[in-house]
Amino acid sequence: MQELNAPLDGITVIDLTRVLAGPFCTQLLADQGARVIKVEPPGGDDTRKFGPFVHQKSAYFISNNRGKESICLDLKQPADRIILDQLLARGDVLVENFRPGTMEKLGYGWEILQKKYPHLIYASISGFGHSGPLMTAPAYDMVIQALSGLMSVTGSPDGGPQAIGISLCDIGAGMFAATGIVSALLWRERSGRARRVDVSMLDAALSMQGTNVMRYGATGEVPGRVGIRHSLITPFGAFACRDGQIILAAGNDHLFGQLCHVIGKTDLITDSRFTNNEARNENYAALKPLIEDALAARTVTEWLEILAKIGFPCAPINTMREAMLMPQVSARHMVVTATERGVSLPVAGNPIKLSDLPDPRPGQIAPDLDEHRGEILAWLRERS
Amino acid sequence: MQELNAPLDGITVIDLTRVLAGPFCTQLLADQGARVIKVEPPGGDDTRKFGPFVHQKSAYFISNNRGKESICLDLKQPADRIILDQLLARGDVLVENFRPGTMEKLGYGWEILQKKYPHLIYASISGFGHSGPLMTAPAYDMVIQALSGLMSVTGSPDGGPQAIGISLCDIGAGMFAATGIVSALLWRERSGRARRVDVSMLDAALSMQGTNVMRYGATGEVPGRVGIRHSLITPFGAFACRDGQIILAAGNDHLFGQLCHVIGKTDLITDSRFTNNEARNENYAALKPLIEDALAARTVTEWLEILAKIGFPCAPINTMREAMLMPQVSARHMVVTATERGVSLPVAGNPIKLSDLPDPRPGQIAPDLDEHRGEILAWLRERS
Repeated sequence: MQELNAPLDGITVIDLTRVLAGPFCTQLLADQGARVIKVEPPGGDDTRKFGPFVHQKSAYFISNNRGKESICLDLKQPADRIILDQLLARGDVLVENFRPGTMEKLGYGWEILQKKYPHLIYASISGFGHSGPLMTAPAYDMVIQALSGLMSVTGSPDGGPQAIGISLCDIGAGMFAATGIVSALLWRERSGRARRVDVSMLDAALSMQGTNVMRYGATGEVPGRVGIRHSLITPFGAFACRDGQIILAAGNDHLFGQLCHVIGKTDLITDSRFTNNEARNENYAALKPLIEDALAARTVTEWLEILAKIGFPCAPINTMREAMLMPQVSARHMVVTATERGVSLPVAGNPIKLSDLPDPRPGQIAPDLDEHRGEILAWLRERS
Repeated sequence: MQELNAPLDGITVIDLTRVLAGPFCTQLLADQGARVIKVEPPGGDDTRKFGPFVHQKSAYFISNNRGKESICLDLKQPADRIILDQLLARGDVLVENFRPGTMEKLGYGWEILQKKYPHLIYASISGFGHSGPLMTAPAYDMVIQALSGLMSVTGSPDGGPQAIGISLCDIGAGMFAATGIVSALLWRERSGRARRVDVSMLDAALSMQGTNVMRYGATGEVPGRVGIRHSLITPFGAFACRDGQIILAAGNDHLFGQLCHVIGKTDLITDSRFTNNEARNENYAALKPLIEDALAARTVTEWLEILAKIGFPCAPINTMREAMLMPQVSARHMVVTATERGVSLPVAGNPIKLSDLPDPRPGQIAPDLDEHRGEILAWLRERS
């Protein structure tokens, strides 16, 4: 048994990933203590050129590559290929998110590497996965959001489909891949054998939509758009106050009663149209304006204060700025400031809190291209 | 070294979770080979009462509890508390998603359990986490979508904020918790010590929004809604054809050129307003109608066929039904049919593909309440 400061202490990840899904995954691994060596092509990860920039450094790149090391390798050059081979011989995990076929063309496919480096866990993140008819089709997050049905269920019933305001299929695939990689590490630790991890954005989208898959599967009814409203519970969604919308979540009859008292509409409690959730669901169109009539008397902030006092589940629709300024977010270190080499940038923190695992250090920043070549080459020499 | 059929073979999860975030997490663990013993209160997990129903069984419950065992325990009864203690003594992981404070009131808080069962990994999933000023505030997915800024960035620029059409904060927290639990298992395997895992829906939402956090952090500009459109690349988003919208993703100048050729608008390539991505971003308002004029000549299906031939990244905006019918989805077993005891229901499959790990067996269904009491009690006796 070893003394370890973090779950992935001593684990080295050889990271060939670019842009978002892969880098998000390997950043999660770095936050859990892995040493992540980012292998970049000449010119670096494309996102080094994505704005906005802070002191000439891409904020986009920084926010997904916190706490990694960088070495620049040209995989068309024999000398650099030797270095990659040395890294793979000494690393524990290879992660890549090229389009399927690319690693094979480069001579680093799973079939070859599993023979050369039987200890190496090989993780691939791609649009459609390494099997199936669409395997090599081009994929971007927006393409997968559209194909997977995610857009079709997002938006209001009277409007068109909407994209989700984050690259959810990239992020989701990165998250599942992180679980798969840690699982494969546990499997190797217990059985001595390294496995292949194969996660796709489309698979991730289907899994995250399990409830919609089930709903169509059970009823044959195609799930539609419901806007900011729970599909099974009423009143549970967005309601207009004097100056904007508030989220009210009356999850049961007791909470509905509390709400009616607070807004001065106790007559609704005994109204036969609203006596239980089923009735309220059916009579949503009648109930909504009655609630909003009462809410119009005050602002969102005023209602939030009143409702907070009785512990009623409610929320403002925050902007990103308002969300980041929540004391709860600071208390959980979910915005950390990267400060180094003249760059100071607030980025998202580590969402996986384990006891004895410190949150990412402030000051931990993404590497410059090829910044760690010297240390990495020295490490390879000392271990060979 | 052991022979193991799956990464979590031989791992027993004592699952006190209800509704969505927790059950989604433990289903991921079950798919990876863990034995998941779902401990349900009298009456069972609330979602057993959620429609739609298939042969009197909740499809909602089935879709999140595939492959688990069930035992019903009343934690107010001393005899049943003894059974839970025996389970915790023999289990590897406890997962719960009560509101913080509830487990403590029941006498099963982390402080107590870590002393009684030092081998036991203790994982909590909650709205706000087990620290911070909002720790015990009520949380639902919609509340967290609103608070975290997710709603504020979803929707079209001229419309209001929108909810995401899935319970993303529940699902995301469940996904991060799964990674945390497997990490903690690896940590225990290597160091001998069990840790606490503490994942919150709000933390998950912040992490998944890393790009928006960074954007506000770098520029001070509050990220807004852009509709179905990439914020950095043009043309990249939804465009109207004769009978509906198509997603076109011209990620670079070459793809833009290809698109112009295919739609018969080669004049756009040399138009000074559109010569590079920066110019196209600026002149999006001029470019969009020009592209849509050309697209109006054909249907979405016709354009998809034409664009597929040249490998141009594009997509229809699928409904859930259309998504589930994609041959790619079947090829990846992302919709599996649960068939048992007269129930047949398509549910989402396992998104974490590892080599040598078979996908969930068709026929694997969620348990009836207390279905496995006999086997579980026999197992406790045989091991004590």
